[in-house]
Amino acid sequence: MGGSASHAAVAASFFAPVKLVGVVGEDFPRKYIQLYKRHNIDLEGLQMLPGKTFHWSGEYEVNMNNRRTLLTELGVFETFTPTLPKSYQDSKFVLLANIAPALQSHVLSQMRRPKFVAADTMDLWLNIALPDLLKLIKQVDCFVLNDSEARQLTQDDHLLSALKKIHKLGPKYVIIKKGEHGAILSGRNGLFLSSAYPLHHVVDPTGAGDSFVGGLMGYLSTARGSVDSNLRRAMIYGSVVASFCCEGFGLNTTVRATRKAIEKRFKELARLTRF
Amino acid sequence: MGGSASHAAVAASFFAPVKLVGVVGEDFPRKYIQLYKRHNIDLEGLQMLPGKTFHWSGEYEVNMNNRRTLLTELGVFETFTPTLPKSYQDSKFVLLANIAPALQSHVLSQMRRPKFVAADTMDLWLNIALPDLLKLIKQVDCFVLNDSEARQLTQDDHLLSALKKIHKLGPKYVIIKKGEHGAILSGRNGLFLSSAYPLHHVVDPTGAGDSFVGGLMGYLSTARGSVDSNLRRAMIYGSVVASFCCEGFGLNTTVRATRKAIEKRFKELARLTRF
Repeated sequence: MGGSASHAAVAASFFAPVKLVGVVGEDFPRKYIQLYKRHNIDLEGLQMLPGKTFHWSGEYEVNMNNRRTLLTELGVFETFTPTLPKSYQDSKFVLLANIAPALQSHVLSQMRRPKFVAADTMDLWLNIALPDLLKLIKQVDCFVLNDSEARQLTQDDHLLSALKKIHKLGPKYVIIKKGEHGAILSGRNGLFLSSAYPLHHVVDPTGAGDSFVGGLMGYLSTARGSVDSNLRRAMIYGSVVASFCCEGFGLNTTVRATRKAIEKRFKELARLTRF
Repeated sequence: MGGSASHAAVAASFFAPVKLVGVVGEDFPRKYIQLYKRHNIDLEGLQMLPGKTFHWSGEYEVNMNNRRTLLTELGVFETFTPTLPKSYQDSKFVLLANIAPALQSHVLSQMRRPKFVAADTMDLWLNIALPDLLKLIKQVDCFVLNDSEARQLTQDDHLLSALKKIHKLGPKYVIIKKGEHGAILSGRNGLFLSSAYPLHHVVDPTGAGDSFVGGLMGYLSTARGSVDSNLRRAMIYGSVVASFCCEGFGLNTTVRATRKAIEKRFKELARLTRF
């Protein structure tokens, strides 16, 4: 089991009630629906359509940081243009997890007055849907991408100047994910450099980026105070949920995490980086 | 001007009095001697011999992290086996900057009762002098190397397990430098993950690793309290001095740093990583 929405929704569910928007094919295993339900994920926005569920496969270099897509089958996502359930439209924290940017914009356009909108993406959309992606970036508060995508988008090898260029495309907050090397946030309070939680065994990093941004948004939506005062901790929570994700295939190890185990790794990461 | 000893000595000189051991050829420019003197570096252990000064050249990939040696000319280092000045032998903090490990061991054997000995290295010695290097590693408190060297030495792609394997070779403290991605310390108090100081313009990272370990040892030798309680801050000071080094060629920008400017970047790095 994988998919950006699944990873992000489960990651966020450790912190907040989640409403999932997405589509699966008739081949989608029943037990996965049960898994969402165990995590109290609202499935009113999940459609099941005739056809095949989205499928992605790829391979990683031995460093587990660089990956190459082998196959992307959109399946039922090909023609998916959801009408959001009414109960979803007033959500204050909106995560547009990685999918075609036109679809992300379509979902966003149905939200009434979101307080904070984040969008994630992947190299595929930079390659085949860049104009849509640039339109989307203008509309979000926070744009999230990985280091190689940031370099591709800005044609700039230097991440700090890439960050500046991405801000010029619209978003007030930009987060560049660097896998095992952590992440950089650029926002109103300047930069924040976060470390990844160090893992002794990385089994499969697929979904780690989705888990990161899901955990981040889940924490952010429930934390008291302003987004600015919570965003750093939100990134650490995101990193921690991502660390659980990397320890197994699919959602196998993420679902075994608990809020208590997450808090433990959060504190550990604080200890590991304090000076 | 470059060379591990030059970079490390100047970096350490911002924190502590430095006694330099090394050799240069008759071609060594007089103005470089003046530079050492301006930094109050004791030159009793610096010999000038007939022949050419050590010379290294290399090229960096566009990411400024991966480099390839083009040329290493040992010159007068080929036959250098120094007898340490008496005034050097009681030094408490000894940095064996990157050079042939047999030479590092030869210097160390003349020290009376050092309190803390660190050794740096480079891929060249892993390739051509591994037995000597393994002998050296056994004798030092702290072994410092970069991530690709750690992978090469341990035949392990995973840095946390590489750290464990390096501890088994002898040293209580191991530091893996990761360039722009910071550094990892593994010691008595477990791990410490440090971030690199983020630079807007990297001109040349040559000597950054030497500056890092020089700054680290310089701070460590003057800070009150135990090595364990100071090592994290020492790594941050090392990172900061290395950041100045990267902003220019050779020692051009390192020498323009001041203790005040170093403290400023130290505080900034604390702000950038706090959560």
